[in-house]
Parts: sequence; structure tokens; C-alpha cells
Amino acid sequence: MKKETASFRLPALKVLCPVMLLAGFFLFSCRDRKEEQSSYAEDRALIEDLQARYMFALDNDDLGTYVSTFTEDGILDIGEGEWQGRETIKQVLTSIPEEEAPAADSGLHNPTGRHNISNIALKIEGDTAWGRAYWFHMSNDNPQRKAQLNSYGHYEDVMVKVDGQWLFSKRKIYNEEIGKWAAPEGNPCW
Amino acid sequence: MKKETASFRLPALKVLCPVMLLAGFFLFSCRDRKEEQSSYAEDRALIEDLQARYMFALDNDDLGTYVSTFTEDGILDIGEGEWQGRETIKQVLTSIPEEEAPAADSGLHNPTGRHNISNIALKIEGDTAWGRAYWFHMSNDNPQRKAQLNSYGHYEDVMVKVDGQWLFSKRKIYNEEIGKWAAPEGNPCW
Amino acid sequence: MKKETASFRLPALKVLCPVMLLAGFFLFSCRDRKEEQSSYAEDRALIEDLQARYMFALDNDDLGTYVSTFTEDGILDIGEGEWQGRETIKQVLTSIPEEEAPAADSGLHNPTGRHNISNIALKIEGDTAWGRAYWFHMSNDNPQRKAQLNSYGHYEDVMVKVDGQWLFSKRKIYNEEIGKWAAPEGNPCW
Repeated sequence: MKKETASFRLPALKVLCPVMLLAGFFLFSCRDRKEEQSSYAEDRALIEDLQARYMFALDNDDLGTYVSTFTEDGILDIGEGEWQGRETIKQVLTSIPEEEAPAADSGLHNPTGRHNISNIALKIEGDTAWGRAYWFHMSNDNPQRKAQLNSYGHYEDVMVKVDGQWLFSKRKIYNEEIGKWAAPEGNPCW
Repeated sequence: MKKETASFRLPALKVLCPVMLLAGFFLFSCRDRKEEQSSYAEDRALIEDLQARYMFALDNDDLGTYVSTFTEDGILDIGEGEWQGRETIKQVLTSIPEEEAPAADSGLHNPTGRHNISNIALKIEGDTAWGRAYWFHMSNDNPQRKAQLNSYGHYEDVMVKVDGQWLFSKRKIYNEEIGKWAAPEGNPCW
Repeated sequence: MKKETASFRLPALKVLCPVMLLAGFFLFSCRDRKEEQSSYAEDRALIEDLQARYMFALDNDDLGTYVSTFTEDGILDIGEGEWQGRETIKQVLTSIPEEEAPAADSGLHNPTGRHNISNIALKIEGDTAWGRAYWFHMSNDNPQRKAQLNSYGHYEDVMVKVDGQWLFSKRKIYNEEIGKWAAPEGNPCW
């Protein structure tokens, strides 16, 4: 009886050891795949989505959604120093006077403005991402409501993943229309 | 002999049980990774590709490819009501008169027009996706063949995955150049 | 003693066989997932990043980074024939005279130019990818530093994955501003 028990246990140990090793290998192998190979796409996809929702909120006066794309203590810097925190950003943006609406009797529909993002470069390490991207703005405040480019520049972003959601922890905006907001020379990307 | 057989079988069972448990865990773990973690990126990648191919087909008069980006009963709405089904969409678009080609003796190469998409926001649940995105159009029908913006607007899309392929089930186009096609106020995104 | 050894070894073999089969299945299953299901998103994400870094390098006179987006024997063709190899591309691009800088006494910040990419369509098979995409260029060399579109066209790319990094093995550029660089009729995409 004793011997039989031993013959049960020992093979179990001898076999479980390589099983465990194999198990560890597969677990590592899968995890490796996820973290090193699959996650860049997953994180990038979520960040691209964040970048798009930011633009929709910005151009459609949805300030609540706009500031929610930042972390609670996130920083926005358009070249006038750092505005930190959702409340501060909201207050500063609210205080910027909007362009005059067209005269009501123009007979035309309201003009609009649109910010677009392109050329998104992203470096991602764990829950932090560094981004560079171009932006350009168009509007149609003319009698033909033709789209017209106004300005462009680039973003230098830091983003963090909070509870599975990517948010801006810092967005620095360069604008090539205004001298003091224009980027210094040199490639800001890598 | 009998006892030996038993001592073969019992360890096998005792060892295979944890092996099976581990196996189940890894299988679940991998599957979980695929379905819950990787799929947003995968679906988004395929939808971005769809959006690009749609534009190439549209701008290059490839109407067959264009309508094949819709489901068989897909809906296109440019602000003139819903056109449903690939055949209907094809017929309506064919009936729209093209802009005049330049005089043959202008000595210039043919002008072209290009639709671009940007700021793609996507919500995806299973085989259905809801999209918001900006579009803008440029052309070069001038003596310098300089690119000129003409118009812009946004898309509100519903897409479905059919046999592994994402297709438009409904595309509603807003165009800020034309009053009756312009979007109502408010953020159309989330 | 001899018998006991046998009773250790045989179960080990009998159990390890299914373990190995299971192991193989999981390994294959995970790999399969990676290569067939997750890789389009992953490869596309890396290629989009490559496309963005290419633009930053191009517009910021970072020629070293620019040519490093090509394979060692990569080909660039802007419509003047094929320039092959990083060194050749560098030499040719260096020899193109830059546009005049504005007079130093203009009081304005330096004007800039920006290439943007959009509508990226990608077919990927293993370590090779075929791309089609739109590009458009804007600059602000005017007294208001307003963004102005200048030209647009499309890319026809072949990319290869070398040591885990996607690089251009061939980029053919079409430019709708210049007759001899304009694309022939027909949809260049699929």
C-alpha cells in the first residue's frame, strides 16, 4: 500500500515538473505575445480613438467631453504656459471669446471650424505613451461656405492609461500661424 | 501485471487532471486575450482599411468597388433621403452629372478630386460598429493644378462584419458647404 | 527496484505524450492567433507609425531619419525614375535646391511646409505589405502665415518587415500638380 502510494506520487511529481515548465513557457509565450506584440496595436487603436473624440468635442463646443479626454490633473499648453487640471482648462477655454457669428440675415447656414489630426507617431511603454502628430484647421466662414485652411501645427503629447482608458496627461500644441506659438527648428519626432 | 496497469493508469489520471485544468486555463487565457483585448485593434484596423478603399473607389470612378463597400442592402444618405441597396446607390450616383472636363486644348493634365477622411472615432460591439469621422474634399481644377479645398463635413456610419469583412450598413454624410446638408448643432460623437 | 523504476518511467511517457500534444496545440493555437488573427492590426499599427515618422523627418530636414525609413536598398520614385539605396536617395534629395527663405527683415517667423497622409489602404502578407494612400502638402509662406494647400497625390508602397521593423522597400509617389508626375486614370487601389 505504501509502495503503491509512492508509485502514484513520484510519477506525478516527475511528470508535473515538465508540465509546469511547459505551462510556464506557454503562459509566458502568450503573455509575451500580448504585451510585446499585440498591445502596440491595441493601445494605438485606443489612442487614435481618443484623438478623434478630442477633435469632435473641441469643434462642437462640447467642453465637458473635451476636458474628459485629459487626466484630472492633465496639462494643456497652447504656447501660453501650462494650464493644469480639467477645471482650469475648462475655465480658460470658456474665457476665450468666440468668433462672431454671421449676421442672422445672411441667409446662410452657420459657418463651422474643424480641426483634423494626421501623421500620428506613437511610442508606447506600458501605461504611458508619447505622441507626435500634425494638426490643421479649416473653416468655411465665407459666402460660398467653401472650406478654407487657416492654420496648422503639431502636437507633442504624453498619454497615460487610467483604468484601461487612455487620457492626455499633457498636450503641448505648436501652431505655425503665430510666431510665438511656432515650433523651434528640428525634428520633434524620432 | 494487473497492479502494474493500475499504477500506470492512476498516475495518468492524477496528472492529467491538473494538466487539463492548466490547459483550459491557457486556452481561455489566450482566447480571452484575442476576443476581449485584441479585437478592438483588429476590427478598427479593418474598418480603417475599408474607409480608405471607399475613398479610392469614389475618387477614381470605380463604382463597382465603391458599392461593394456597402452591405447588399446598405444605405447611403447624403442628405437627400436614404438610398438603399448596392444597385440603387449605383444608379443614383451614375445619374449625377460629372463636372465638365477641361477643354482638350488646355495643354494641362486632367484635374482630379480627392476625398480624405480623418478623426475616425469608433465604437465596436461584436459584429457592429458605429463610426464618426471628418471628411474634406480637395481638387485642382485651376491652371496651376494647385490643390484647393472645396468642402468638408462628417460621416455617421454603421458598419457590420459579414463573413469576416466589415461593410457599411449605413453611411449618413453631412456637408458643411450646403445648407440643407449641414449638420445640426451639437457634438455628433461621444 | 527495477520494477519501480519502470513504473516511474512508463507513466511519465504515457502522460507526457498527451501533454506534448496539448502543448503543441496551445502553441499552435496561440501562434495561429498571432499570425492569422492579430497580425493585421499589429502590422498596420507599425506601418502607420512608419508613415508618420517618414513625414516628420521629411518636413523637418531630418534626412538621416528619412532615409532610415527605407530598407538599405529601398527605392524612391517621385516620377523621375527609381533612386535606389539610402545613400543615393540622400544624395538626390540633398541636391534639390530648397525654396528661398524669407528675407530676414520680414519680421515674420520662418514659413514651413507639411506633408500629410490619409486614406491608408494596406494589404499585408507575412513580412510584405502593399500600401495605397493619399498625401497632400500645405505651407504658410505668406504674410499671414495662413495654411495653404499646394498639391496632392497618392503613394504606391511596398513595405517589408526586417528584424521586426517595417521599412519601405519601394515608394512610388504620384503628384497631381505636375503633369508628368500625375497618376494614370483608374483606381490604383483594390
